[in-house]
Amino acid sequence: MKHIYKDDSYALHTDLYQINMVETYWRDGLHNRKAVFELYFRKLPFGNGYAVFAGLDRIINYVKGLRFTEEDLDYLRNEVGYAEDFLEYLKGLRFTGTIRGMKEGELVFGNEPLLRVDTTLAEAQLLETALLNIVNYQTLIATKASRIKQVLGKNEVAMEFGTRRAHEFDAAVWGTRAAYLAGFDATSNVRAGKMFNIPVAGTHAHAMVQAYRDDYTAFVKYAETHKDCTFLVDTYDTLRSGVPNAIRVAKEMGDKINFVGIRLDSGDLAYLSKEARKMLDDAGFKDAKIFASSDLDEYTILHLKAQDAKIDSWGVGTKLITAFEQAALGAVYKIVSIEDENGKMMDTIKISSNPEKVTTPGLKRVYRIINNRTGYSEGDYITLETENPQEEKRIKMFHPTHTYISKYVSNFTARELHEDIFVGGELVYEVPCLEESREFLVKNLSEIWDEYKRTANPEEYPVDLSQKCWNNKMRNIEEVKEKVSAMFKKE
Amino acid sequence: MKHIYKDDSYALHTDLYQINMVETYWRDGLHNRKAVFELYFRKLPFGNGYAVFAGLDRIINYVKGLRFTEEDLDYLRNEVGYAEDFLEYLKGLRFTGTIRGMKEGELVFGNEPLLRVDTTLAEAQLLETALLNIVNYQTLIATKASRIKQVLGKNEVAMEFGTRRAHEFDAAVWGTRAAYLAGFDATSNVRAGKMFNIPVAGTHAHAMVQAYRDDYTAFVKYAETHKDCTFLVDTYDTLRSGVPNAIRVAKEMGDKINFVGIRLDSGDLAYLSKEARKMLDDAGFKDAKIFASSDLDEYTILHLKAQDAKIDSWGVGTKLITAFEQAALGAVYKIVSIEDENGKMMDTIKISSNPEKVTTPGLKRVYRIINNRTGYSEGDYITLETENPQEEKRIKMFHPTHTYISKYVSNFTARELHEDIFVGGELVYEVPCLEESREFLVKNLSEIWDEYKRTANPEEYPVDLSQKCWNNKMRNIEEVKEKVSAMFKKE
Repeated sequence: MKHIYKDDSYALHTDLYQINMVETYWRDGLHNRKAVFELYFRKLPFGNGYAVFAGLDRIINYVKGLRFTEEDLDYLRNEVGYAEDFLEYLKGLRFTGTIRGMKEGELVFGNEPLLRVDTTLAEAQLLETALLNIVNYQTLIATKASRIKQVLGKNEVAMEFGTRRAHEFDAAVWGTRAAYLAGFDATSNVRAGKMFNIPVAGTHAHAMVQAYRDDYTAFVKYAETHKDCTFLVDTYDTLRSGVPNAIRVAKEMGDKINFVGIRLDSGDLAYLSKEARKMLDDAGFKDAKIFASSDLDEYTILHLKAQDAKIDSWGVGTKLITAFEQAALGAVYKIVSIEDENGKMMDTIKISSNPEKVTTPGLKRVYRIINNRTGYSEGDYITLETENPQEEKRIKMFHPTHTYISKYVSNFTARELHEDIFVGGELVYEVPCLEESREFLVKNLSEIWDEYKRTANPEEYPVDLSQKCWNNKMRNIEEVKEKVSAMFKKE
Repeated sequence: MKHIYKDDSYALHTDLYQINMVETYWRDGLHNRKAVFELYFRKLPFGNGYAVFAGLDRIINYVKGLRFTEEDLDYLRNEVGYAEDFLEYLKGLRFTGTIRGMKEGELVFGNEPLLRVDTTLAEAQLLETALLNIVNYQTLIATKASRIKQVLGKNEVAMEFGTRRAHEFDAAVWGTRAAYLAGFDATSNVRAGKMFNIPVAGTHAHAMVQAYRDDYTAFVKYAETHKDCTFLVDTYDTLRSGVPNAIRVAKEMGDKINFVGIRLDSGDLAYLSKEARKMLDDAGFKDAKIFASSDLDEYTILHLKAQDAKIDSWGVGTKLITAFEQAALGAVYKIVSIEDENGKMMDTIKISSNPEKVTTPGLKRVYRIINNRTGYSEGDYITLETENPQEEKRIKMFHPTHTYISKYVSNFTARELHEDIFVGGELVYEVPCLEESREFLVKNLSEIWDEYKRTANPEEYPVDLSQKCWNNKMRNIEEVKEKVSAMFKKE
């Protein structure tokens, strides 16, 4: 009979092969070689024109707390069978390196590094799985939420209602956080409210109406026990029972309550909201709001609005918290440079018959090129570490695949997108509160043209390599091809 | 400036409206009325012929630990604004009721209760969100994993590799557990291995080959530090570099290692596996296995097998752990009965213009009707609490919507599908180990015909209501319709 181990750390929240590789590096004396990994995705999710970076807060806590507990080591010893000397090494392992990366709420695009991890080969390898797990989900949901925000009017309210359909507990709370970061106004998840200081929202469910057996009694009872009242009107019959009884109770209770409005949770939301609006207006409740929920997403909301649905506040559940049509972001974590036996950093590359999967080697930096005349971005610009576009008067920006698509940009400000998060193992980044990150996103969105924000068929935002960076990639590809060919001829 | 609250309990892992309703019930003296809720889904996911129930283990721990901590109460007091007397009530609240439900590994179908919660109205309401959050995800993934198992041969191995694409940490580990429950053989997630005693698997990644700059050196180094060797062969060129170098190292190391085989992670897996198989066989490594991964799911696996791909072991990531084409199961939790002021249990119903959304009222039980002659199931059979099909000689089973589809069944065994989990607030269920649940699933699958197990266009498995249960539902629908009509005429 095997032991039961306490789930007391996240150090093992990684793939087994990471630990196996660390063992090889360690026994071979390579574990402390400097290595640089980049975390990035290749394609924007949902066919959107941008993505919203999220996950850094969780990553910081994960990296800070990274250590193998006695339980972890017992498990690895007893069940996986690692040798004692290697376990001793793992026991002392901490993150000692540098992480640079995007701030939460930054706009990010395909094929640009969101995080860059400069540390020992062993440490970098161990982080991979958890970093991807976090960024892949949180960035996906922040992006989905931002899309939904794009179709809402200035005074419309967006609420996250997805906990029951989220992929287990963490997705519910971290997905909610990502949605709030991206501009949602509130959540129904009370724990997320507590953890992240997000406004919480909600009134009552169908079950309460069923418990009281009719709309009228249920609304009265709710009104007698709560100041702010939003009545859910679709338990039995929205227009024949729900709305009339909501109005009746609002009239009867008068100033004793704050009649916020009604909530529709099924049926044709365009038709029902227009009819309900008329009924509310006719009864003198012109300020009463109409809340709607029921399988909503940016597509349905846009269509409902096109049909002039009278909805003030949108509750979005399943299709936000699961990302629905795009199950995963698909970010990857790739080694781009490694120290050789002489202490020199050497480029690394992964070749693939799939051109998008070829990595861009070398130490790099990412800049957003803001046109000083318009205040709008001309695109993102990836350079080698040794370059500094801030000192250049004019840069050539060209598509990294279709290189004929190019432009010269002058009179620009090159804003470096990466901040130092950890340096020498120490957290040096002052983590902003969520409200600041929300404002940061709003500012970032104001720097890109509307054509990148359209939720269908947006323009492609340029993410270009500097000439030097591009040349370096081509040189690396050629080298590998020659090496493989030489080997093949030998055989 | 608001407080920071510790995330020290799951009591707030619920929707705000649940707490608001509890407040109404409590102030109105209804909170201790007995109520019965059922958790069920309407439609099988993935168009599959069955689903695999999972989540009970996590639910048991959640329910056992349910209490509002001081941090929770502080949050509710300071940020949401509940009154002190109500918070005092919440402070003492524990689960005191009965939960009956399916065992993990049970086959479950649409419109049958997976869990039945008999407790006070207040407690039942508070549980809803977390129970759905758990069952919706874990049952979805167990079902997806079971579908993948259906297309694999007896000796083929299935491995869960999805952590980096899972929806945050919990999904990674609980999804892995669900996959293992459903018959997967191993996972790459070491923490899941530790938490649930699941075999862990993995060798090395592309990064290691890049770190050593060529396949040969990397494989040698790995072989020098590990007994069991599976080499990842697609970093530079699978057939020209990866496979030949794997073979070369296997030959050079001889008995010093156990050459398990090679892993393909990109490219055309049918072509590459067949070519690699030939190369391995020609080199005398007929027992070496071929592992494959790369966007696999039951569809791609089936097609690869149809093209005679030579793959022994399948690593499935994104499309398993996210459920990919089906973002959520869509289970709901509905009140079916409530105690009235005289202590009598009264049916409750929710009507909807969408016929599938009408609930089935009343206290009910679920049976699987096993034909004694064949040993196979005739379908599931939902009765009122007061009925006992185990004592009946012959039952009529009919489709609950298309009632003309009917059959009489005699010489059967009616196996009740619900077990007592909690009774009077106490856990009475002896939680089986995961291995037992795996075997339980295998046994359950052996009791349904193959036509329900086909991954495309399976037959529809019957989930029928007894005549009494069906009559009771119709009576309740009529009553509500009359009530709404009467009210409408009055106005």
